[in-house]
Amino acid sequence: MNTDIIYCDHAAATPLDERVLMAMQPYFAEQFYNPSSPYAPAVRVRQAYRQAKHRLAMAIGGQADDIIMTAGATESINLIFGGVQGHVVTANIEHHAVLEAARRCDNFTTVAASSTGRVDPEAVARALRPDTVLVSIALANNELGTIQPLREIATVVQSERRRRAEAGESTPIYLHSDASQGVGQCDVTVARLGVDALTLNAGKIYGPKQVGLLWLAHHVRLDPLIVGGGQERGLRSGTENVAGAVGFAKALELAQAHRKSEVQRLASLRDTMQRVICAAIPQAIVSGDLQHRLAGHLHIAFPGVDAERLLFILETKGVLVATGSACAANKGTRSHVLTAIGLSPEVADGSVRISLGRLSTEENCHQAAEYIIAAAQQEYQRTGGYL
Amino acid sequence: MNTDIIYCDHAAATPLDERVLMAMQPYFAEQFYNPSSPYAPAVRVRQAYRQAKHRLAMAIGGQADDIIMTAGATESINLIFGGVQGHVVTANIEHHAVLEAARRCDNFTTVAASSTGRVDPEAVARALRPDTVLVSIALANNELGTIQPLREIATVVQSERRRRAEAGESTPIYLHSDASQGVGQCDVTVARLGVDALTLNAGKIYGPKQVGLLWLAHHVRLDPLIVGGGQERGLRSGTENVAGAVGFAKALELAQAHRKSEVQRLASLRDTMQRVICAAIPQAIVSGDLQHRLAGHLHIAFPGVDAERLLFILETKGVLVATGSACAANKGTRSHVLTAIGLSPEVADGSVRISLGRLSTEENCHQAAEYIIAAAQQEYQRTGGYL
Repeated sequence: MNTDIIYCDHAAATPLDERVLMAMQPYFAEQFYNPSSPYAPAVRVRQAYRQAKHRLAMAIGGQADDIIMTAGATESINLIFGGVQGHVVTANIEHHAVLEAARRCDNFTTVAASSTGRVDPEAVARALRPDTVLVSIALANNELGTIQPLREIATVVQSERRRRAEAGESTPIYLHSDASQGVGQCDVTVARLGVDALTLNAGKIYGPKQVGLLWLAHHVRLDPLIVGGGQERGLRSGTENVAGAVGFAKALELAQAHRKSEVQRLASLRDTMQRVICAAIPQAIVSGDLQHRLAGHLHIAFPGVDAERLLFILETKGVLVATGSACAANKGTRSHVLTAIGLSPEVADGSVRISLGRLSTEENCHQAAEYIIAAAQQEYQRTGGYL
Repeated sequence: MNTDIIYCDHAAATPLDERVLMAMQPYFAEQFYNPSSPYAPAVRVRQAYRQAKHRLAMAIGGQADDIIMTAGATESINLIFGGVQGHVVTANIEHHAVLEAARRCDNFTTVAASSTGRVDPEAVARALRPDTVLVSIALANNELGTIQPLREIATVVQSERRRRAEAGESTPIYLHSDASQGVGQCDVTVARLGVDALTLNAGKIYGPKQVGLLWLAHHVRLDPLIVGGGQERGLRSGTENVAGAVGFAKALELAQAHRKSEVQRLASLRDTMQRVICAAIPQAIVSGDLQHRLAGHLHIAFPGVDAERLLFILETKGVLVATGSACAANKGTRSHVLTAIGLSPEVADGSVRISLGRLSTEENCHQAAEYIIAAAQQEYQRTGGYL
């Protein structure tokens, strides 16, 4: 990591934690055996893998047997959507992985999020049909950082399940949440969230890339997406990524252990940045839900400014921020999330996502805020816009 | 790696090469950026990823754009089978990943392999139907090490394609090969193999686990298995595993660079083992195709002996070998491959797969052969069997 860089894009990617790499190291060249092989050295690898799944399960209040290891959140999401048959409900601000997976289902309904990016549990209730098998709402939105009222949405799903049981209807209904963005900042205990399925991603919490999991409650029945040797209870075949699972377990434990202090630290840094920037640039608009927002997220618009130019100027100062999500940004299209919450094109196109994390310090956040202010002022002056 | 261990199971798993790990290292914590992010440090990561794909493509005589990175061979296989619609043809000795993926297709035919595990191109020709869209034959069988006449099978597929073109039929037909077991020992230049799609797996060639690829000729049209952010030309979404791709490229280059000398070395070690064991245990039966066999493979049966007991005895001496494939072994069922080629239960259940590789030396192979002879003799004496 270049020390001249002020990285403010932790929602896009995080560096592998040194402790995580150390935990993975023995499984690269020393304990490399195929966990399915019968001899003792391989059995020890199998046990290490199992132990890693146990630790992952402990961190979310689940059981090792209920965890399906995957190659990341996108695969987990495709597995749950592809594994059910029937109508699915999701929100119009979900990640492309969810929206594209939903589009491949027989039927789907997208609930419109509010102007702050919150999904109304009542709206979810209205979208349910007798054949709805899956409701999928991310714990926190990856662009805005808005945290969803999952607990309330879970109540909606549970009461539909009760209604069906009483009516003698046999169609199951599951609540899935992609918690890739929330984990490390929110409580992801599955019982407290009230979910039946949970997606987590190691790559967002200083763990290895392309390592993810799908936790499934005992009662969830899925068809596999990837078949073959029958690993992961037949739900996801392929020789296990032992180093990846061990690294993921370590990363999740570290994230959980420092969660509360880190949330406090990041929220304080973020709030200061927000205050300083908004004071200097009165036109600045903060998007998302100010009450229910990830501690490290600051989604801020400079209406009339071209955010891509802003990014370019900031980059020359070493400040790395994002416009919209990394995936969408690369395609040159306007973020579907910002359109969905009703931001005008002028506001959406002037939006910058700042996401703080472990590389953020008081000093570099202060510095970043100054550069952001200077860049926005420069752009407003250049265009003769609002200033 | 414990130096007391004589590892003879390279077909099940290989240790990560130190040079591969070194190549991956910069992309763990330093160049960790999301390849889709717009700023220069992320663009450099994107270039490194692209460069890795270019190197992978070079090694098989293809182009970077035609490579879809996956989380291993099983996913690649599921992608090609799930991505086509119509009748598929494969062989009854294929890996479970292929057979299970074929079972999920609308229609499939399995061609019976010969008693040495060879797939007859004529039999493939007879299995073709007007609606056949995919023929999938592994380059080499993972249990027997038998190398398939892919070039001849490609000729069959090509002449069917020609017939369709002349008849004005528009159904495409593709030849796919899982070369996970052949790469590093066989030529995997796609044009010389004559395939339209090729699966490779880093984990079998001293590269990272859960890293694979599916190469597709320009004319191949597939539906994606995993949708979302649209990475890999929309055929496989998910944040890219940059370290994995870079490691895979290094592993494949190393495998190719030393291929010819390594094949010679392994064949010599294997032939000596085979000669020594067969001389000492006259009942021993070598399975597979002696003319078309992977250099490191020795599939040998001691009829009447329980191979699982043999494995246990060998393990106490530090010699690690396999019965059947690692996946099947773990399930306690008889190998479908050995049944398919018509081995009697007595021979199949007395079969051991020895697969040599980079950890094999003249000394440890000699030692392993002695232990295998002693163990087989001990078992024959104990059971009062054939000796």
